[in-house]
Amino acid sequence: MKSRIILDEDEIPKQWYNIQADMPNLPKPPINPATMKPVGPDDLKPIFADELIRQEMSTKKYIDIPDEVREILTQYRPSPLYRAKRLEEKLKTTAKIYFKYEGLSPPGSHKANTAIAQVYYNAKQGIERIATETGAGQWGSSLAYATQIFGLECMVYMVRGSYDQKPYRKIMMETWGAQCYPSPTDMTDAGRAVLKKNPDTAGSLGIAISEAVEDAAKHENTNYALGSVLNHVCLHQTVIGQETQKQLEIAEEKADVVIACAGGGSNFAGIAFPFIRDQISGKDRDTEIVAVEPSACPTLTKGLYAYDFGDVAGLTPIMMMYTLGHAFIPPAIHSGGLRYHGMAPLVSKLHADGYINAVSYHQNEVFESAVMFAGCEGIIPAPESAHAIKAAVDKALECRKTGEEKTIVFNLSGHGHFDLSSYQAFLSGKLQDYEYPADLIRESLADLPKVEV
Amino acid sequence: MKSRIILDEDEIPKQWYNIQADMPNLPKPPINPATMKPVGPDDLKPIFADELIRQEMSTKKYIDIPDEVREILTQYRPSPLYRAKRLEEKLKTTAKIYFKYEGLSPPGSHKANTAIAQVYYNAKQGIERIATETGAGQWGSSLAYATQIFGLECMVYMVRGSYDQKPYRKIMMETWGAQCYPSPTDMTDAGRAVLKKNPDTAGSLGIAISEAVEDAAKHENTNYALGSVLNHVCLHQTVIGQETQKQLEIAEEKADVVIACAGGGSNFAGIAFPFIRDQISGKDRDTEIVAVEPSACPTLTKGLYAYDFGDVAGLTPIMMMYTLGHAFIPPAIHSGGLRYHGMAPLVSKLHADGYINAVSYHQNEVFESAVMFAGCEGIIPAPESAHAIKAAVDKALECRKTGEEKTIVFNLSGHGHFDLSSYQAFLSGKLQDYEYPADLIRESLADLPKVEV
Repeated sequence: MKSRIILDEDEIPKQWYNIQADMPNLPKPPINPATMKPVGPDDLKPIFADELIRQEMSTKKYIDIPDEVREILTQYRPSPLYRAKRLEEKLKTTAKIYFKYEGLSPPGSHKANTAIAQVYYNAKQGIERIATETGAGQWGSSLAYATQIFGLECMVYMVRGSYDQKPYRKIMMETWGAQCYPSPTDMTDAGRAVLKKNPDTAGSLGIAISEAVEDAAKHENTNYALGSVLNHVCLHQTVIGQETQKQLEIAEEKADVVIACAGGGSNFAGIAFPFIRDQISGKDRDTEIVAVEPSACPTLTKGLYAYDFGDVAGLTPIMMMYTLGHAFIPPAIHSGGLRYHGMAPLVSKLHADGYINAVSYHQNEVFESAVMFAGCEGIIPAPESAHAIKAAVDKALECRKTGEEKTIVFNLSGHGHFDLSSYQAFLSGKLQDYEYPADLIRESLADLPKVEV
Repeated sequence: MKSRIILDEDEIPKQWYNIQADMPNLPKPPINPATMKPVGPDDLKPIFADELIRQEMSTKKYIDIPDEVREILTQYRPSPLYRAKRLEEKLKTTAKIYFKYEGLSPPGSHKANTAIAQVYYNAKQGIERIATETGAGQWGSSLAYATQIFGLECMVYMVRGSYDQKPYRKIMMETWGAQCYPSPTDMTDAGRAVLKKNPDTAGSLGIAISEAVEDAAKHENTNYALGSVLNHVCLHQTVIGQETQKQLEIAEEKADVVIACAGGGSNFAGIAFPFIRDQISGKDRDTEIVAVEPSACPTLTKGLYAYDFGDVAGLTPIMMMYTLGHAFIPPAIHSGGLRYHGMAPLVSKLHADGYINAVSYHQNEVFESAVMFAGCEGIIPAPESAHAIKAAVDKALECRKTGEEKTIVFNLSGHGHFDLSSYQAFLSGKLQDYEYPADLIRESLADLPKVEV
């Protein structure tokens, strides 16, 4: 029985899996807020590479991964699948626990998988510069890493609160040649407007998105890139689930439960979609798919399935998704990557159609599981990824009660090397749990855009 | 041609390689400063586990790695050997560059290799607590990781300067259940004595060693552990070189140059000793072995081969080694792990006997190579490990001139996730190079202990 199931670099998947080909019902189309008509390819051309737009709208089941992309992926893929034997022993569970580890990528999470692909297509099209926003810093780091490799310039608008809190993330991006500024900046109309009203603001992801989109629209040969939510981002992450299935085959295991945390939905989609494919096709109907979110930002568990904007300012297309309302600003929990009011439209539709169970946890119980996991398996997880650990631990404890011998698989989407101040807050008892902010959410949900399709 | 050569977990070496069995001349024995006689096993028993003392003095060529140790090693071993293709292209070199990457261990460096083994033998002997010192924090983190796995308590005296500079390292150790205090503390005689004289001292490795040794001697069931210099530490690191040789075989390559940075000497020993074995046996006389050190602390390149203390206070055994004098305090360069006045006695003897070439570099040129490497290969290296990169780059540029097609292999001993403030200093032009501190070294070398053997 092996602790770590590894694949050879030849076994990096040769194609991405596009779940749009298999879904019994596709989500309703995104809407252009200017025309209130469904978004077409031409609406996206000013800021996205053509091939990414094609992938966004494609219903082809498998899409070839270019050799150039696979070659860069070999810097850290295939990623290992681990058996968490010490954790099993600690929990005295009858279950088996496996985890797929995405934290070995140079920027430290799964985000690199899509950054490489997105930058490749932009480079191929002659784009010389990419602008983006970053909250926690994982996505900005990943884009910096990928642009450096392909020789593009990179401009990152980092939410000022995070920028001040996580100086190492900024230096990491600069080491990879990117420029990183605290948002709001005085370099965009959007930023200046906010600064005029509130010079001391800590910023928000919504503002940073507006700045990056404006930057891309206004600069020569510059595109925009997004690290989650969109269909093509979920697509690029399916290397995770495809590798996991191959590794489970080698281990002669069948997954009974597949778990991942869900913020915008991309690491969840990455591991889950290939398993949902097998559910839909009838190859394996019994795998339970679980999305885990913070109680302080319970998009799938307490949100509405409705049309809403992707950003606070209402500049992005209006998407059909689970949402807490685009005006909802989640409490300042330590999982920055899970503080998003919406959810990937594909993940949302699959949840609405009953393919996904969603659960939520408070941050103290999540950190408790994270510290226990670090003690058993060595790896200190990102707070986001620790949500998946907590759900896996709970499933394993259920099995201990029932005596079931389930195989539980979760996605450990990143390491926590840059999140240690959160661990300090937890270890010193200073981490606060937030009750479900029902009032705030009710208020925010009252303000959804009206769409008739 | 593969980018990443991986081994299966069954291929973790089953034995450590003990170079003491093969050396034409062994180093002169360490001397007990109390008796001025060679150190015997009984001198070490109060603070080291029996099996580690046996390994320290053994001349058996191969020593079995216990299954329990190999099982923990599977959490991150075998480590990958990478071909640095993008770096080669960048340098337009005719050489091939490979690197062995030890930064995937949970604490982030090769130090975990010996921490696991040391804690295992201590646990087996019923020891319940281990005390140690740490400078940069890599060793303290590794011991915290290993003690947590085996259920021992861990006490780390961290040099106060580092403690204040790298708060994340301390939190990492605490997450793994260790206690970590800034040294000097008021918990030991040694610490109190220093604080009385100088309450605001930033501490030093020498003081921290004294505190940890005193702690181990005074506490019930507590031993001491050291992360470099000693024979058994070098022994445990030989998994690195053994794996590398197997991986080169798979790649159908023969190493012409093997490079590692050298502070206390353990990561260098780890990759180099199996290659030196083949030099000594005549199997392969042509491999050049290169140790790289900072110009600010040039132990092998400017030091004396002489008997000296391992610590500043003169409490440790007196060892025959290259030394800058135990009173030498190196300038505050950003490679904390290379700021040591001495060098492992085995590495020293091999250098004295002509098996090793030593070179030194200033820190700005080292960081230049580190940033170039990060841009090509993704990984942001620890400043210590970046010394090896700089030497590899220079070798590759030599080949570009001569047209030679050498195969260059270096050990990338750790990642730089907790060293990003050094990168910031470099990127902002604030990093200072120190001239070879000839006066300081001359002064310090005037104060060596007198030993007659």
